[in-house]
Amino acid sequence: MRYTLGCHLAYKVRSETLFIFNLEVAQLQRHRDLKESLRLGPDLPVRRYVTPDVANRYAAVLVPPGTFSLDYEAEVTLAVHRADPAGIGETAVKDLPLDILPFLLPSRFVSSDRLAPFALAEFADAPKGFERVNRICNWIHDHIAYVRGASDGETTADETLLKRAGVCRDFAHLGTAFCRALGIPARFVSCYAYGLVPCDFHAVFEAYLDGRWWLFDATRQANLDGLVRIGVGRDAAEIAFATPYGEMEPTGMEIRIDRTDGADEAGARTTDAISTEEPAPHAGAA
Amino acid sequence: MRYTLGCHLAYKVRSETLFIFNLEVAQLQRHRDLKESLRLGPDLPVRRYVTPDVANRYAAVLVPPGTFSLDYEAEVTLAVHRADPAGIGETAVKDLPLDILPFLLPSRFVSSDRLAPFALAEFADAPKGFERVNRICNWIHDHIAYVRGASDGETTADETLLKRAGVCRDFAHLGTAFCRALGIPARFVSCYAYGLVPCDFHAVFEAYLDGRWWLFDATRQANLDGLVRIGVGRDAAEIAFATPYGEMEPTGMEIRIDRTDGADEAGARTTDAISTEEPAPHAGAA
Amino acid sequence: MRYTLGCHLAYKVRSETLFIFNLEVAQLQRHRDLKESLRLGPDLPVRRYVTPDVANRYAAVLVPPGTFSLDYEAEVTLAVHRADPAGIGETAVKDLPLDILPFLLPSRFVSSDRLAPFALAEFADAPKGFERVNRICNWIHDHIAYVRGASDGETTADETLLKRAGVCRDFAHLGTAFCRALGIPARFVSCYAYGLVPCDFHAVFEAYLDGRWWLFDATRQANLDGLVRIGVGRDAAEIAFATPYGEMEPTGMEIRIDRTDGADEAGARTTDAISTEEPAPHAGAA
Amino acid sequence: MRYTLGCHLAYKVRSETLFIFNLEVAQLQRHRDLKESLRLGPDLPVRRYVTPDVANRYAAVLVPPGTFSLDYEAEVTLAVHRADPAGIGETAVKDLPLDILPFLLPSRFVSSDRLAPFALAEFADAPKGFERVNRICNWIHDHIAYVRGASDGETTADETLLKRAGVCRDFAHLGTAFCRALGIPARFVSCYAYGLVPCDFHAVFEAYLDGRWWLFDATRQANLDGLVRIGVGRDAAEIAFATPYGEMEPTGMEIRIDRTDGADEAGARTTDAISTEEPAPHAGAA
Repeated sequence: MRYTLGCHLAYKVRSETLFIFNLEVAQLQRHRDLKESLRLGPDLPVRRYVTPDVANRYAAVLVPPGTFSLDYEAEVTLAVHRADPAGIGETAVKDLPLDILPFLLPSRFVSSDRLAPFALAEFADAPKGFERVNRICNWIHDHIAYVRGASDGETTADETLLKRAGVCRDFAHLGTAFCRALGIPARFVSCYAYGLVPCDFHAVFEAYLDGRWWLFDATRQANLDGLVRIGVGRDAAEIAFATPYGEMEPTGMEIRIDRTDGADEAGARTTDAISTEEPAPHAGAA
Repeated sequence: MRYTLGCHLAYKVRSETLFIFNLEVAQLQRHRDLKESLRLGPDLPVRRYVTPDVANRYAAVLVPPGTFSLDYEAEVTLAVHRADPAGIGETAVKDLPLDILPFLLPSRFVSSDRLAPFALAEFADAPKGFERVNRICNWIHDHIAYVRGASDGETTADETLLKRAGVCRDFAHLGTAFCRALGIPARFVSCYAYGLVPCDFHAVFEAYLDGRWWLFDATRQANLDGLVRIGVGRDAAEIAFATPYGEMEPTGMEIRIDRTDGADEAGARTTDAISTEEPAPHAGAA
Repeated sequence: MRYTLGCHLAYKVRSETLFIFNLEVAQLQRHRDLKESLRLGPDLPVRRYVTPDVANRYAAVLVPPGTFSLDYEAEVTLAVHRADPAGIGETAVKDLPLDILPFLLPSRFVSSDRLAPFALAEFADAPKGFERVNRICNWIHDHIAYVRGASDGETTADETLLKRAGVCRDFAHLGTAFCRALGIPARFVSCYAYGLVPCDFHAVFEAYLDGRWWLFDATRQANLDGLVRIGVGRDAAEIAFATPYGEMEPTGMEIRIDRTDGADEAGARTTDAISTEEPAPHAGAA
Repeated sequence: MRYTLGCHLAYKVRSETLFIFNLEVAQLQRHRDLKESLRLGPDLPVRRYVTPDVANRYAAVLVPPGTFSLDYEAEVTLAVHRADPAGIGETAVKDLPLDILPFLLPSRFVSSDRLAPFALAEFADAPKGFERVNRICNWIHDHIAYVRGASDGETTADETLLKRAGVCRDFAHLGTAFCRALGIPARFVSCYAYGLVPCDFHAVFEAYLDGRWWLFDATRQANLDGLVRIGVGRDAAEIAFATPYGEMEPTGMEIRIDRTDGADEAGARTTDAISTEEPAPHAGAA
């Protein structure tokens, strides 16, 4: 399915500010025919950096004091990989490709070490594989309330568990933490989400099962087969849509995503397992 | 100067265990004529993985139940880069190569976001550059007691600040956190440390100043020009010398490092700034 | 039933130390025919203080350097109040005597404010009254492992919830915290516990329901009708059996409690609701 | 000096709500000729409770849904005890009256146990007595920024130390925590504060030195000899000016305090040590 999407960001910049943006659509094999444009006002030079491990796309812009705006537009055909969840088992830690192993480690907001006793107590006996991660999402959906303003930029997964409230960022951190605590590699994903109301940058997570990364959304607010990936990372710190170094304040923000090949607003949520990244030949694979 | 070094690790393995070791000497341009051997008992296959960003060397071994030992021996000539600290200033964030920026982000044990108010209050007015990081080390050395057993594997930099006690791991996390909070990229470094008594794996940190990474040791327990690097990372989670997945217990551990070209046990600590990594042509550099 | 009980404590005192002991049997109406003796070696003066609110008995001893021992022996007939749990409802906060209200507030180790979202989510819908507190105990018993060494003197109820492990002190703090979060006054209780194996000072908690304090033990390790109260308080900080101010180390500790009127070692646990404190005419009662 | 003071509080009550107010002037020997009135709208019954240990005055009102207001007015002559700070030493823990000892224990927001290493490192060598507590206030004033909104109702003293920012409540908690960590009994004090701009309920703390309680204000925002006490407690939890049990929202709040015997707006801050509570014959005194 083909999507048109984009965002408009505006800032009032008080002192020269370096912005690191991570909001362009990821260049994946299953993101086909990607057409995109990035316009800045004023028109400033952009430095670019793509990470060697997971191919996140960063754009750095040094902005002088004054008003500043960014407009990103893209069109992309999302060709997801679908599978029957029932057939997806876990990959034993011993069989994981070595470049996947860092996604078992705790990170700033994914305190999987602190949450290990909780995760083991709740999910150790669940059927292994897709079903176990699905139960994790169900548990989060049933036990954590989606409350705007319930968290801030320093909120960790263990705090969310206690507060029982958060936003998509927190749901994704908690799901990621439970997975890692159980020996399932997991990573934080930022994306444009078709069907999300109101539209916004969305955060979900991926778990590595049976040799590839599968998408999960514990908020259940968007269609898994309508998620257009921006970046993946250990947690939200790595892939904020904008990381500013300087004095500024946001003055406007709009995000949009639409179907270009016929709407299906009423379309039911998929029950398939969805993946958008093709397994690569891994370094150090078994 | 040429060093001979190595370690002996022994384990009693109860259930099949995957060990990820990160204890071999880093392959750096300034680590010259590296000769090394890794012997396992029993002799098991080793899978290897070198990270694409900072070239950490991981060795994965799947060990069946029983006794298991590892012996690593290496010889290396350490050709450090020396400079006068007085001439080393800071690199403004806007001038940093983009692949360095992740080392400004908080990580699991380096809670630089939480420590930002403290770091700014104590160090914002210090002279910028090497001198500021040196003052950070002095502050840590003067305010944190080196106490074995004062921390555990989940201790974060902000906890160390409150407890006022820790081991080399904690000193390095706190130094790293203060630097990141001040806009100075910093990373955790594991190494063999000539002159450390008693000999052990050591943890120090590097700060990125004036275009390259410089070594700092807030514990002041080793010679900066006698540190043979193993790995670098966001924090200790990424470069533990051994990360076991399975049931086992350590039963023995010895680390050693000696000079092979004439001893200088009485040698004074260097007052030079020391760096062991050559600046690379950076992606996205200004 | 009549019990004989006591304790022996021994210390090596390095610098003059003030000990505050809280280990004598509480003087309650239902603690009948209390006979007791407190012997110190050496024989030092004792200052005494009984708190005006809950009648805790503190004994202060100033001990010079050297060895020091305390032997406490008591005999008491415990005449518990029994009731059918089914008939015990909750007292609405608006109907609580005002001197009970402090036991709704959070305290150092009873972080009921932090645990409120969790408590409400798990127990808000449980039948009110004894049954709700009973479910809290069941939940704790089922979800928290009794593990010696899992906690220390600074462990709070929210930490215990995450660690899923603790000792009697932690079980009592967590039960107290859940109750307070739900608007049920609760307090920490130290006691001699008949049937506890191995014998030790025990910690349980009391909840205020239908006009009186009822005993609860989430560890299920002792008989509720065999608990001889020492003190009650907001949490463990207030009623440690010994609070030393000075340099010393414990060198011995024995606690014992036996029936004097015929053993019933094989006696089943009571299913009655048990209370040992008579309701007093309360200041500010409705 | 004679003061006229008072407060006006207004609420919109959604469900029947029990309010516990603690805002009336404490009945102290040095609070002379206290005249006061409490008017409620609507005129509802008030239950009263005075705590047996520190004589806090609580007023409980059960309010039905609708609008609710409270107006308190008082006149009082404040006859403070003054002394030369230079002559005020510390009372050794062994010489403390036993009913003072609870004010050495940690409480919910006064995490003196966690702050002990920090307190000892910073203040152990300061001259004992008034001077040491004065240095604690200086340190807090110099290192913590007074920032509205920097904290919330769950903020603890150790968090304030890290955040380096807070309001009067946080300054008082931190001062209290440092004192307790050093073996100096300390308690949280709520009061009307002459000279505070803008006028509000104020929080300061008292330390027990040389046999009596002395006032300290680390915010330095009010005159120590113009503080009219409301309540004292372990921390803010015990003496909130209003603790509501029910659904309601505050809709108005005004606090005022003026001199009735001639203004001295330009009066300099006192440098005397100030105390407003007469030492009582203590239970269990040495």
